[in-house]
Amino acid sequence: MELPELLVIHPPPVFIIHQQQFSQKFKLLKAYESPLSTELFLQAHAQSTKALICYGKSPILRHLPSLGLVVTASTGFNHINLPECRRRSIAVANTADVFSEDTADIGVGLLIDVLRKISSGDRFVRSGIWPKNVQYPLGSKLGGKHVGIVGLGNIGLKVATRLEAFGCTISYNSRQKKPVPYDFYPNVCELAFNCNILVICCTLTIETRHMIDKDVLKALGKDGILINIARGPIVDEKELVKLLVEGEIAGAGLDVFENEPKVPQELIALDNVVLTPHRAAFTEEAFRDAFQLVLANLEAFFSNKPLISPVIDE
Amino acid sequence: MELPELLVIHPPPVFIIHQQQFSQKFKLLKAYESPLSTELFLQAHAQSTKALICYGKSPILRHLPSLGLVVTASTGFNHINLPECRRRSIAVANTADVFSEDTADIGVGLLIDVLRKISSGDRFVRSGIWPKNVQYPLGSKLGGKHVGIVGLGNIGLKVATRLEAFGCTISYNSRQKKPVPYDFYPNVCELAFNCNILVICCTLTIETRHMIDKDVLKALGKDGILINIARGPIVDEKELVKLLVEGEIAGAGLDVFENEPKVPQELIALDNVVLTPHRAAFTEEAFRDAFQLVLANLEAFFSNKPLISPVIDE
Repeated sequence: MELPELLVIHPPPVFIIHQQQFSQKFKLLKAYESPLSTELFLQAHAQSTKALICYGKSPILRHLPSLGLVVTASTGFNHINLPECRRRSIAVANTADVFSEDTADIGVGLLIDVLRKISSGDRFVRSGIWPKNVQYPLGSKLGGKHVGIVGLGNIGLKVATRLEAFGCTISYNSRQKKPVPYDFYPNVCELAFNCNILVICCTLTIETRHMIDKDVLKALGKDGILINIARGPIVDEKELVKLLVEGEIAGAGLDVFENEPKVPQELIALDNVVLTPHRAAFTEEAFRDAFQLVLANLEAFFSNKPLISPVIDE
Repeated sequence: MELPELLVIHPPPVFIIHQQQFSQKFKLLKAYESPLSTELFLQAHAQSTKALICYGKSPILRHLPSLGLVVTASTGFNHINLPECRRRSIAVANTADVFSEDTADIGVGLLIDVLRKISSGDRFVRSGIWPKNVQYPLGSKLGGKHVGIVGLGNIGLKVATRLEAFGCTISYNSRQKKPVPYDFYPNVCELAFNCNILVICCTLTIETRHMIDKDVLKALGKDGILINIARGPIVDEKELVKLLVEGEIAGAGLDVFENEPKVPQELIALDNVVLTPHRAAFTEEAFRDAFQLVLANLEAFFSNKPLISPVIDE
């Protein structure tokens, strides 16, 4: 029996790690290993390709007339042209919430790190200046802080329940009010004004691009801390950097950046920011779960069964 | 009216920050600013000194025949000779649990950091190698981990409730079984064997010195992580370093060290450890609370009222 074909234009990290298992189930069409240009490679497989796996980068759909499924090895799907998929009846599957606990954990970890100066304390110890009796600044207590969650979906809710255990007060901004015991702010600027900390957990859409702008950051204020575990472009990075450099905002914990993997040099010079390389979802456990879910969606598609975690275009 | 005298041999951090307020309430006898040797300074004030404030270093009690109170600006009191205080009816006060929430927070922060490679990710970003497409190792998920708390006092309990919110399973070792819904292990080696992570939260005593030895660390195992937010000498640091270097234990988050502020050079060379300069209690909020408690104990003593937070010698 012939294996079904699976197109991989750029390999997602989950694919790289579980490549062996994928190759046992599918005939892999690896555009990235071909001597052909991506365009010529797609043309060569245009008629037969029914499914592709992607991640981060937009898959080119126009060269693939037989395509029936796009699986993204991620929760976010802002890189996929959903209107075109809908128009052409291409199904889309994501990895549902397999990464949401790990992403929430990184959010809390970055927040504790910024408030309590863990990474900067680690730099201090490693630099060997501790024995020199240098004054080291005090941190700030997590308990009692007012935390504003921007986007109270799977991840936002998990950040909220975790921070409640530390004694934080939670408020949120979201498209709609939700049945939760937290204060709802329909205006993100007002949320920022009433909070010490903002944790960005929303998806990137046309509406949320640069939603965290100068006004929101100014409303957060001089003692305010911004945590971004969502997508870089939700924050106006240029303004964030400017306000951090000027001391108009107290600190930031950033797992995502506007032009990844480029990180503004000004941020690297600051001690009150913690910068991680978009690794919120990168655990062995989440990758194993994501692999299983990607596989289950592909198998469902090729046996004409309903997808396990379809993306519903709203 | 004359202010009561307060002896300060070495200034505690809480004292340094709130010195102004202390000087309004007390005539400060600062041994550390005197041109006299500590011994001569103490002799000069021997008859009048009724109260001293200390932190970390053992106060010399034998030169102070009139002493009635030792206040330590810390929760730990292993530096105070309690039997001698008892024999001479010198009252001892500590800062009770004003630091315990912050200490628990650092414990959780160090654990997330080690598991999810936050500090090492920050180093990775700051070093500028992210754009070079270097493979970055996966982290490990906090949820589902079995965490063993060594010492289920104020701090240990707060670590436990925080980690429950992340989906961890909690067990503990303590002198006695406690009325908590966690598995109790009377033997710390057995606890280590049954856990992925050990968080050291106990006080340093003759019994707990080097309690976390080679056997315990070997029982914790190759995938095991050690977090120490208690006192350095509870861990046999030489063995810990050896096992970390040999890969016989997966990682460590250490806020305390056996010979602070000296940190073994081998640790500084490792990427799977997070090292903070004994700052678990160092927040503005906790320092303010500690100052108020130190002051309240001193005022109670000088007005012959019961101490607010006396240390009871067991």
